[in-house]
Amino acid sequence: MGQNADNRVYNFSAGPCTLPLEVLEEAQAELVDYCGLGMSLLEMSHRGPISEPIFEPIIEETRRLALSLWNAPDDFDVLFMQGGASGQFPMVPMNLLDEHSRGAYINTGHWVKMALNDAQFSGNIYQAWSGEDEAFTRSPDSSEIRLKDRTRYVHLCSNETIGGLRFSDFPGLDVPLVADMSSEMLARAIPWEKFDIVFGGAQKNLGPAGVTLIYIRKSILGSLNVEVPRTFSYAAQHASRSMANTPPVFSIWMVNKVLHWLERNGGVNEMEKRANARSKLLYDCIDNSDEFYRCPVQTAHRSQMNVVYKLPTLELEKSFLEQAAQHRLVNLRGHGSVGGIRASIYNAMPLKGVETLVNFMQEFKHKNA
Amino acid sequence: MGQNADNRVYNFSAGPCTLPLEVLEEAQAELVDYCGLGMSLLEMSHRGPISEPIFEPIIEETRRLALSLWNAPDDFDVLFMQGGASGQFPMVPMNLLDEHSRGAYINTGHWVKMALNDAQFSGNIYQAWSGEDEAFTRSPDSSEIRLKDRTRYVHLCSNETIGGLRFSDFPGLDVPLVADMSSEMLARAIPWEKFDIVFGGAQKNLGPAGVTLIYIRKSILGSLNVEVPRTFSYAAQHASRSMANTPPVFSIWMVNKVLHWLERNGGVNEMEKRANARSKLLYDCIDNSDEFYRCPVQTAHRSQMNVVYKLPTLELEKSFLEQAAQHRLVNLRGHGSVGGIRASIYNAMPLKGVETLVNFMQEFKHKNA
Repeated sequence: MGQNADNRVYNFSAGPCTLPLEVLEEAQAELVDYCGLGMSLLEMSHRGPISEPIFEPIIEETRRLALSLWNAPDDFDVLFMQGGASGQFPMVPMNLLDEHSRGAYINTGHWVKMALNDAQFSGNIYQAWSGEDEAFTRSPDSSEIRLKDRTRYVHLCSNETIGGLRFSDFPGLDVPLVADMSSEMLARAIPWEKFDIVFGGAQKNLGPAGVTLIYIRKSILGSLNVEVPRTFSYAAQHASRSMANTPPVFSIWMVNKVLHWLERNGGVNEMEKRANARSKLLYDCIDNSDEFYRCPVQTAHRSQMNVVYKLPTLELEKSFLEQAAQHRLVNLRGHGSVGGIRASIYNAMPLKGVETLVNFMQEFKHKNA
Repeated sequence: MGQNADNRVYNFSAGPCTLPLEVLEEAQAELVDYCGLGMSLLEMSHRGPISEPIFEPIIEETRRLALSLWNAPDDFDVLFMQGGASGQFPMVPMNLLDEHSRGAYINTGHWVKMALNDAQFSGNIYQAWSGEDEAFTRSPDSSEIRLKDRTRYVHLCSNETIGGLRFSDFPGLDVPLVADMSSEMLARAIPWEKFDIVFGGAQKNLGPAGVTLIYIRKSILGSLNVEVPRTFSYAAQHASRSMANTPPVFSIWMVNKVLHWLERNGGVNEMEKRANARSKLLYDCIDNSDEFYRCPVQTAHRSQMNVVYKLPTLELEKSFLEQAAQHRLVNLRGHGSVGGIRASIYNAMPLKGVETLVNFMQEFKHKNA
């Protein structure tokens, strides 16, 4: 592990992003010849010989781990699909709505705007709250959310990776939630009773880009829209155990490895504790900087995964990014639409990475304040 | 390379399937630390630092190679999307049709049936020819294809991986073709002037499962349906250079490596020559077996990628598969819907693999005829 670890950077990318080093090394060791089978998992058919299937036990174990490690109730299944969370934006209304029902959207920023835009082509939807007038600096209380009649689901984004805000508590409503949790998958415990669907791309907490996990309440499968293309159909994917079309075999294998790592490291409760510790370190550094660093998000709504902040000037931000890279702290630039700095600190980011960043921030402030 | 090569099987899977060993070994070497950057390509953001983007040059080069190596005219672009060819079944009519136009489908077997089923939800489509009455043993002449007025495109599957038949010549029609070429991507030269769109999953000739290539005529982009979710929109994916949503970074990187391998090995013309040679060896063995091995497909329409055949009894087929595996010849079982044997021999299958299979077939026949 020595040489790889020595050269390793701290990668604060918003996704695809840092993965556990031991997972990468394990994948590397098995990449050309998987388990002595004389072929790579990259070459492996999802439909092995019936007598000795190879991929089917892997996807089954991944499914089981993804459910159990997040403490999902028995009424949930998890589907592995493609297209990322963005692909789910049209698929959710396609599967859940009919001509009589509609979907409500809680607009907390960029990713819900994208969902609103893409969902409109597949069903009747509307905005039930918007934080736009407040520059997306908080998530709403349940009492602020205005639902119309015949609302089938309420879509929310549990954590806005660009704005750096989250739902610290999930709203309690009479209608089931559908949550885009791309950036918080298996990073916090959630009240499953409130959700019908939780989805997200793997490329933040769970693996490489190219596979999407959809946690779905099994009791709703029977009432879904049946006029849906097979590849996009939750019912068809559930019935075929995520093999309605060729699944992204290698990406699922990587998720399997990350889940095993997560299990060895104490599961979702430990991940949440670590996320608390990492984000507290960073927010404390920001809040104790005499406004040299400023986070625009209201304290109670701040993300534990994507810490966004600004410096006094654009010039200082530019030089901050350059010097950070020299300290092997990379991909800290904020999203183009908002600018500033963004430190994405998902499950695989070691505390040491955040400590190194905080030390650098204090030093940089000391020199430039 | 010694140890890996020694243990290597000949993998006749229909996809995901065998990749060039040198590509796997290259990926393995770079897997944990890509180019000394201190991170894996599995962790790499598609949006690198503007000053030194890492993935953008990779996807750009992959695009350029995918076009030039297949001799696509300047009017074509290639998009990298997700969801496989199955995902394209609903996306083609979603993007190409409006309320006045319709899509025609040439039904040569399993994959066009799937396309018909999935396309019906996104537009007005119909079957313009069907080989079902002849048990899908040939593709049609142009004169047999019955087009209705206001037909925007004609969908065909250039090579049916399950039935083992192909279009040796592509039909000459007044309407542009849209071709599912999943199993023949960069494996044969094609008359580009006949096509508006050529699509396919990478997992046969080009890389691992998880990325779909869509070759699209640029001059049609302006007339596409605009009411399409961003992730599914050819125009949006073209405009954003396949980054309308997070692309499957690692899978595209693997395609890049396979394309470089293809370039080193003489390009698509050489691939076609090799495919001719491989399939001729196998069909000759079948046709010279005194009907011990029987291929149901008419000679002129036989696939060069998926050679299907039957043995005199199911018992013999079972024992054929078992003994083949002992000779390190694996994944030869035919698709569940048709049974029999299927040898998939894509670009990366060495001639040696087919020779080994043919030797085994002759020996097996000798012992069992």
